[in-house]
Amino acid sequence: MTAMQAQNTLAGQIVSAIREVVGAGPAMLHEPSFNGNEWLYLKECLDSTFVSSVGKFVDRFELELAEFTGAKHAVAVVNGTAALHIALKLAGVTAGDEVLVPALTFVATANAVTYCGAIPHFVDSDVATLGIDAAKLRDYLLSHTEQRANQCVNRASGRIIRAMVPMHAFGHPVNLDELLAIARDFNLALVEDAAESLGSYYHGRHTGTFGLMGTLSFNGNKTITTGGGGAILTNDVELARHAKHLTTTAKLPHRWEYRHDEIGYNYRLPNLNAALGCAQLEQLPRMLAAKRELFCRYQAAFMQIAGVKLIAEPDQCLSNYWLQTLLLDAERADQRDRVLQASNDAGFMTRPAWALMHQLAPFEECPRMDLSMALSLSRRLINIPSSASLVPDAI
Amino acid sequence: MTAMQAQNTLAGQIVSAIREVVGAGPAMLHEPSFNGNEWLYLKECLDSTFVSSVGKFVDRFELELAEFTGAKHAVAVVNGTAALHIALKLAGVTAGDEVLVPALTFVATANAVTYCGAIPHFVDSDVATLGIDAAKLRDYLLSHTEQRANQCVNRASGRIIRAMVPMHAFGHPVNLDELLAIARDFNLALVEDAAESLGSYYHGRHTGTFGLMGTLSFNGNKTITTGGGGAILTNDVELARHAKHLTTTAKLPHRWEYRHDEIGYNYRLPNLNAALGCAQLEQLPRMLAAKRELFCRYQAAFMQIAGVKLIAEPDQCLSNYWLQTLLLDAERADQRDRVLQASNDAGFMTRPAWALMHQLAPFEECPRMDLSMALSLSRRLINIPSSASLVPDAI
Ligand SMILES: Cc1ncc(COP(=O)(O)O)c(C=O)c1O
Ligand SMILES: Cc1ncc(COP(=O)(O)O)c(C=O)c1O
Repeated sequence: MTAMQAQNTLAGQIVSAIREVVGAGPAMLHEPSFNGNEWLYLKECLDSTFVSSVGKFVDRFELELAEFTGAKHAVAVVNGTAALHIALKLAGVTAGDEVLVPALTFVATANAVTYCGAIPHFVDSDVATLGIDAAKLRDYLLSHTEQRANQCVNRASGRIIRAMVPMHAFGHPVNLDELLAIARDFNLALVEDAAESLGSYYHGRHTGTFGLMGTLSFNGNKTITTGGGGAILTNDVELARHAKHLTTTAKLPHRWEYRHDEIGYNYRLPNLNAALGCAQLEQLPRMLAAKRELFCRYQAAFMQIAGVKLIAEPDQCLSNYWLQTLLLDAERADQRDRVLQASNDAGFMTRPAWALMHQLAPFEECPRMDLSMALSLSRRLINIPSSASLVPDAI
Repeated sequence: MTAMQAQNTLAGQIVSAIREVVGAGPAMLHEPSFNGNEWLYLKECLDSTFVSSVGKFVDRFELELAEFTGAKHAVAVVNGTAALHIALKLAGVTAGDEVLVPALTFVATANAVTYCGAIPHFVDSDVATLGIDAAKLRDYLLSHTEQRANQCVNRASGRIIRAMVPMHAFGHPVNLDELLAIARDFNLALVEDAAESLGSYYHGRHTGTFGLMGTLSFNGNKTITTGGGGAILTNDVELARHAKHLTTTAKLPHRWEYRHDEIGYNYRLPNLNAALGCAQLEQLPRMLAAKRELFCRYQAAFMQIAGVKLIAEPDQCLSNYWLQTLLLDAERADQRDRVLQASNDAGFMTRPAWALMHQLAPFEECPRMDLSMALSLSRRLINIPSSASLVPDAI
């Protein structure tokens, strides 16, 4: 194939469009930017010697996260997976329960369910949000569950479906109004996996603040990073207190005694990592602006290419555009691997959506509804370079 | 009471002895020292932008930990609790098993057992090491268990006792020869909780390298710190590979695909924390020397005080002297709270041993042997200021 011919394939056109926006490359999928007080706060942390479980940056990070998201309380934890584990536990998920989880998600959402001894129950996706398809879920619950003593029972398994965990994929808010209504109607706790959606808003309100609890991740590939880190958001003061207690070994406060009243966890965010988080949070508005600008540039570049579309934020939502995402037309799904190959070969890191949860060996036997849209999406989605630093003038 | 009278009480004498060694105070129980390349490596880490799950400091920290301890492999993880969880899982501990754990330990040892769905079974302490009393354990197992198909079954509960977790309390190595023999004789996996004993040696070999696996902690209060962190030590390459896999979400290596073949965990140590660890590890020999010198100074100061003794390393062992520890004579146990009160009031942070595990609400119903020595010790032990920085000339 000549260079000219390569240019004319879908893969070739996509690589050209990426190059047009981000330059010659190479470009990572998502790398962090440290252009603010990161250095200063890390040094302050080291100089204070309070790098670990005690220190002012943890408190400050929690306050500033609450302020930024509008949640009444934020509890900083060691990562987004730990945040999900504790949020599900506090939502009442116990051994033998089922929890509704999108099939199209990062594996942590499903893993956290199993940490509670519960079983993930996989649900289909909505092409408009990439998150749970609310209408399809309602129909499914109507025909497959019944209410017994105000609990939602899966008729097939006999198990209680205790909660649902919508996930805001790549930063795009799900249809929360309808999912909250379903949670109410079917007696399900709603925990938002907002790991990917810091800075994303649904109808003007920050994602992660709608359900009983919401969880964030500050992993290195996220919009802002603490190295590793996460948080639990909630408007319920008692849940916040309990989350703090469980994530800090459930130790009772005492001047010298070591006494614990529950089985707790060491899910603390170290002060060192919180220091990085405080500096990153100061940069967040600028990062979000850069990522939005990157979306606009990609949109212009991909407009002319037939067979592929750049995913835009849902109606009445603001997305943080964490990962920019291409959706191949259904009849171009067979081009996906060629696009991945060509772009990665050209130094532009791209990747497909995650393997669906029910396709993974540990979850093969888990209950699930028809997953045709999730299946279709998982064959057609491609994430492309998304770092805020790709718009250097904006950060 | 006059100052002179206070001076003459045991509490008064102990406060004076501490002051004699560490100066006017205040003195924390244990604070870290950052006198080496901490700053440099953190900056290098930030400048590289690799602060999270990928980066050279994690690999380097693992190699250097293996080198320092003499373990064939070290797997860095997010903290000592996570290390224990995974080590127990890899030792074959599953739901409904029992695991032998000292009653006198930090709660994480027992918690980690429950994370596997197993039940801690509490065993008594040896006054010579503060760890598991091997002779008493052997008698107990002989009379309370039987072998069925090469498994150790607790006759009372009918459950399999799968493993034992000796813990090297305050840095003092337990009687490993005898415990290894018991593990062999009764078909138990032996996992060492070496959270407190980095730099401690039993018969010339580093603690944590005797059992199937050993676990370390780099919490802020430990001999060296990564903010939060831990490691799994093992001489078995396959266990090391599996530990790495399970602690990094069990993702299969692939250029772009996200596929996981087991239920995994996000127990990664971030590169940022590993950077701190690499710098701290360089300081470790100096810290150990300082802590040993501090022991000598305390020993001189406490020699003359009747009714209390400073704990020294067991025979043929080198302790890291993580926490310097006083043991009140049995007939002075009633003075303990007065000592704690007086020393903390004077600005010298001291604390008693942990509440025993079976005294905590979540473990009240767990099986246990006679715990009379653990009970006696828990009423008589007092940790006193132990930072390496209290011997500033040595670090
Ligand atoms: C959807 C989703 N849930 C949960 C997580 C887990 O977060 P963490 O990696 O901080 O444990 C992530 C990110 O990795 C994620 O993308
Ligand atoms: C005996 C013991 N085991 C386990 C741990 C757990 O380590 P971490 O705090 O790093 O989770 C600690 C320290 O806190 C400990 O002292």
